[in-house]
Amino acid sequence: MENTFSSREDNYSQWYNDLVIKAGLAENSAVRGCMVIKPYGYSIWEKMQAALDKMFKDTGHENAYFPLFIPKSFFSKEASHVEGFAKECAVVTHYRLKNSPDGKGIIVDEDAKLEEELIVRPTSETIIWDTYRGWIKSYRDLPLLVNQWANVVRWEMRTRLFLRTTEFLWQEGHTAHATEQEALEETKKMLDVYTDFAENFMALPVIRGIKTANERFAGAEETFCIESLMQDGKALQCGTSHFLGQNFSKVFDVKFLNKNNQLEYAWASSWGVSTRLMGALIMAHSDDKGLVLPPKLAPIQVVIIPVFKTPEQFAAISIVAENIKKALAAKNISVKYDNRETHKPGWKFSEYEFKGVPLRIAIGPRDLENNTVEIARRDTLEKETFLQQDIENKIVHLLDQIQKNIYQKSLDFRVNNTYKADTWEEFKDIIENKGGFVSAHWDGTSETETKIKDETKATIRCIPLNNKQENGKCIYSGNPSVQRVLFAKAY
Amino acid sequence: MENTFSSREDNYSQWYNDLVIKAGLAENSAVRGCMVIKPYGYSIWEKMQAALDKMFKDTGHENAYFPLFIPKSFFSKEASHVEGFAKECAVVTHYRLKNSPDGKGIIVDEDAKLEEELIVRPTSETIIWDTYRGWIKSYRDLPLLVNQWANVVRWEMRTRLFLRTTEFLWQEGHTAHATEQEALEETKKMLDVYTDFAENFMALPVIRGIKTANERFAGAEETFCIESLMQDGKALQCGTSHFLGQNFSKVFDVKFLNKNNQLEYAWASSWGVSTRLMGALIMAHSDDKGLVLPPKLAPIQVVIIPVFKTPEQFAAISIVAENIKKALAAKNISVKYDNRETHKPGWKFSEYEFKGVPLRIAIGPRDLENNTVEIARRDTLEKETFLQQDIENKIVHLLDQIQKNIYQKSLDFRVNNTYKADTWEEFKDIIENKGGFVSAHWDGTSETETKIKDETKATIRCIPLNNKQENGKCIYSGNPSVQRVLFAKAY
Repeated sequence: MENTFSSREDNYSQWYNDLVIKAGLAENSAVRGCMVIKPYGYSIWEKMQAALDKMFKDTGHENAYFPLFIPKSFFSKEASHVEGFAKECAVVTHYRLKNSPDGKGIIVDEDAKLEEELIVRPTSETIIWDTYRGWIKSYRDLPLLVNQWANVVRWEMRTRLFLRTTEFLWQEGHTAHATEQEALEETKKMLDVYTDFAENFMALPVIRGIKTANERFAGAEETFCIESLMQDGKALQCGTSHFLGQNFSKVFDVKFLNKNNQLEYAWASSWGVSTRLMGALIMAHSDDKGLVLPPKLAPIQVVIIPVFKTPEQFAAISIVAENIKKALAAKNISVKYDNRETHKPGWKFSEYEFKGVPLRIAIGPRDLENNTVEIARRDTLEKETFLQQDIENKIVHLLDQIQKNIYQKSLDFRVNNTYKADTWEEFKDIIENKGGFVSAHWDGTSETETKIKDETKATIRCIPLNNKQENGKCIYSGNPSVQRVLFAKAY
Repeated sequence: MENTFSSREDNYSQWYNDLVIKAGLAENSAVRGCMVIKPYGYSIWEKMQAALDKMFKDTGHENAYFPLFIPKSFFSKEASHVEGFAKECAVVTHYRLKNSPDGKGIIVDEDAKLEEELIVRPTSETIIWDTYRGWIKSYRDLPLLVNQWANVVRWEMRTRLFLRTTEFLWQEGHTAHATEQEALEETKKMLDVYTDFAENFMALPVIRGIKTANERFAGAEETFCIESLMQDGKALQCGTSHFLGQNFSKVFDVKFLNKNNQLEYAWASSWGVSTRLMGALIMAHSDDKGLVLPPKLAPIQVVIIPVFKTPEQFAAISIVAENIKKALAAKNISVKYDNRETHKPGWKFSEYEFKGVPLRIAIGPRDLENNTVEIARRDTLEKETFLQQDIENKIVHLLDQIQKNIYQKSLDFRVNNTYKADTWEEFKDIIENKGGFVSAHWDGTSETETKIKDETKATIRCIPLNNKQENGKCIYSGNPSVQRVLFAKAY
C-alpha cells in the first residue's frame, strides 16, 4: 500500500520524492527534467491559482497573455538579464521536419532554419516590455497592472519534482508606473500579497526580506522575497517581487509624456510564484504517514467513510452520510462520500490519510444507534466522537483549527531552528550539523558572501525587512558589520 | 476615435482586424505569427474557460498538465499523425546560448546540441498516451477522463489574430476507456458539451456533424465537429471531438487487464476548442459600430454613465448609480460605474458601444427628477426609459433577451444563407457569388472532394448528424449519392 515509503529521518529526499509520486501529485515524463502534474496535484495547484488570481484582481491587476517565444536578440539588450537567463534555455532553430531519406522516421528540414533563433521564455520581461512600448504613451496609460499565467522553461541540469523542473507553471506580474515611488510601492504590495497567501492559505510562515546583490534577479534594482524553512532545515524561496527601476523601459524604449508634458521612461516591477510552491507545501507539513494539507488548499476537505457489515447498515449509514454531505456542501466545504464497496474501510482510512485529507468522518452501526460520528484529524491523528447534531458547524470549526495548528507547528519549527552565530566555528557547526536559519553578521561584500557559500554551501537568504541595526563583526572576515543577515542552505 | 474603422461591407477582413486591435482584444507580437492577448480580450477568454471548465468537471473530467516538449521520435509512431502534425512545427535543437566571440550579442552554443530534438507540442496525444502506459493497468483504472489547458504551437504560414496563430491557447481532453462503445459515447458527449457552450454561452448556432476522411484529425477513426457560419458567408469550425479507436494505445502500448483477466488495448477519445473561438465570437455578432458580446461572456455586462453639468448633479447621480450597481452585483451581474470626469458622456457612449457592453445605463438630471434611467441595448441600439424601481430585475430580463436575440439573429442568418444545389453550375454560382452553406449530393469519394476544393475552394464542412438519406447524383461527378453533405468556404 501507499504508506510503505521512506521516512523523513531515513532519507528526507527520498521521502519527498516517494510522497509526490505515490500520492498522485506528479511524476517524471519522457522528456528530461519535465514533469507531468497528475490530477490530484493539479487540483491543489488550481486552488492555489484561484486564491492568488483573486488576490491579484482585488489589487487591481488584469490578466493577459504574451508569446511563448522570444527573439534571441531581445535577451542581449539588458546586460545583466542575459547573464542570468539567456544561457541555459531551450532554443528553437527550425520550423519544419521532413521524412528521413532512409524511410525511418523524421528529421529536421535544414531548409526550414529560422533567420533568428527563438528562445522558449524563461521569464517574460523582454517580450512584455517590447509590447508595452506600444501601450504606454502618456501618464494616463499608467499604471499598467498586468499578470500572466504561463509555462516557462529554464534548462536545469539537476531537477526535482515541483522544486526544480525544466518546464514549470507560474504567474508573472509585470507592471509599469509613472514614478519610482509608485513602482517601489507596487513591488512591496505584491510581497504583502505573497506573504498573505503563504501564511493564510499554505499555512506557511515566511521571513520577508531583501536579496543581496549576489542573489538578486538578473535585471532588477532590488529583489524582495519570502523565505520559508522546510523540515530538513533547508530554506526554500517561495516568491519574489522585483523593483526593476527603468532598466527595461530604457532598453525597450518605453517612454511616456508625464503631467508636465515631458518624455520620461516608465518605472517597472515584476513578481512571480510558481509550481515550486507545491514543493514547499508538501515538504513543510507532511509526515511519515503521507501528505498533510492545509484545509484551505485541500481539494477534498472532508471524506466520509461508511463502516458496515450488512446491506441494511450500509443503507442506513448512507442516509446519514448524504445528509452530512449536503449540510457541509451548503457551507462550501468540499466533501467526498466514499461509498465504494470494492475497498475496505481500513484501506480507505490509510488512503485518505496518505492523501492529506484534513478530516475523516467514519460512520458505523454504533454511530447510528447513538446519533454520533467519529472524526479523525489528519494533522494530529486524533479521533473524537461527536453528536451528529450541528455537525457542519463543528467541522467548520475543526477545519479552522487545523489550518491554524499547521501554521503554528511550522512557525514553532522555524523558531526552534533559527540560531544566532557569532563566530565562524559556531556558524559552520550550525550549518553542518543542525541546519535551519543562521542569523549572523556579514560585512556586506559579495566577495565574503561567495566565500561563505563556497565553504559551507550556505547562502544569504535575505536581509529581513525592518532589520535591527546593530554593530558587530563579520563572522567570516571580521570586518565591521551594521546588521545580521539570514543564512541557510537552500533548495 | 475607435469607431473610425472599416465597415463589414467595404472590407470584411479589414473590419475584423481593426475590431480586434482597436477594441483591445489582441495584437501581433514581435514574434512572427504569435499574438499578444490583451487584457480585455483575455477577460473574455477567461469567461469562456470558466464556463467550459465547469462543464468538463460536471461531466466527470479532471485537469492535469503534460510537458510542452515532445521527443521527435514520438511523432513517427502513429503514421497518419506524423503527416498531419509533425511537419510544420517548432523544433528545439539546443539548450544553451553563449556570448558571441565578436562581443556582439549571443549565439547558439553548438556544444549544447540535444541528442534528440524536441518538438513544441502541436497537440498532445503522443506524450499523453506515452504517460498513460504507466497509469492504466486494469479496467479499474478506466475510464480515465483528463483535460489539459495549455498553449500549443503549429507553424502557420498565413496567420490571423485568434483565427490562425502560430501559438494558441486551448484545452485538449484525452480520455481512455475499456470499450469501444464507451469511448464513442464520450466522443459524442463532448460534442454535446461544445454544442451547449457554443449555443448557450456564445449565442452561436452550430451544425453538428462528422468530418469526411479528408478533413479528419490525423490519427482519428472518426472526427465529430461543430460548424458555424460567419457574417461574410464563410464557415468556421468551432470545435472537434475525435474517436481515436485503439490507434494511440497500440503505438504506445497501453494495455489493461479487462474483467475477464485478458490484456486489451485501451480505447481513446480526444477533443479540443481553442482561442479560435474568440475569432468566431467576434465575427459572428459584431457590427460596424464595434463588438457585440453575448451577455454571458461579456466581462462588463452593464455600464452606468452619469450625464451632468454641476457637481451637485454628479453627487446626486452617483448615489443612484451606486445603489443600482449594488443591486445588480447582488444578482451576479458585472457592472461598471464609469464616473471618470476626464471623459465626456458622448465619448463613453461610443467607447462602451465599441467594446460590446450589452447594456448601457445613462442617468441625467431629468432622470433624478423622474426616478428613471435610460437604458440602451447594444444588440438593437434601442434606447428606452425605465423607472428605477425594481431595475435589477428588468436588467436581468433584458440581458436574457439580448442573449436570445443575438442567437436568433445568427440562426436566421445561417438559415437564410444555407442553400441547396443540384447542379455543378448552381453550386459554383452560390459558392462564388453568395457564400454560405451549400447542401449538395456528393459521391462519397476523397477524389471528388479534392477536385471540388481545387476548383472552388469549398470544402465539405461536415456530414450532418442524423443526416437525411436520399438518393441523388453527385453535383460534380454525377455518380450516385445517398445523401447531401454541407459545403462551404471556410476559415
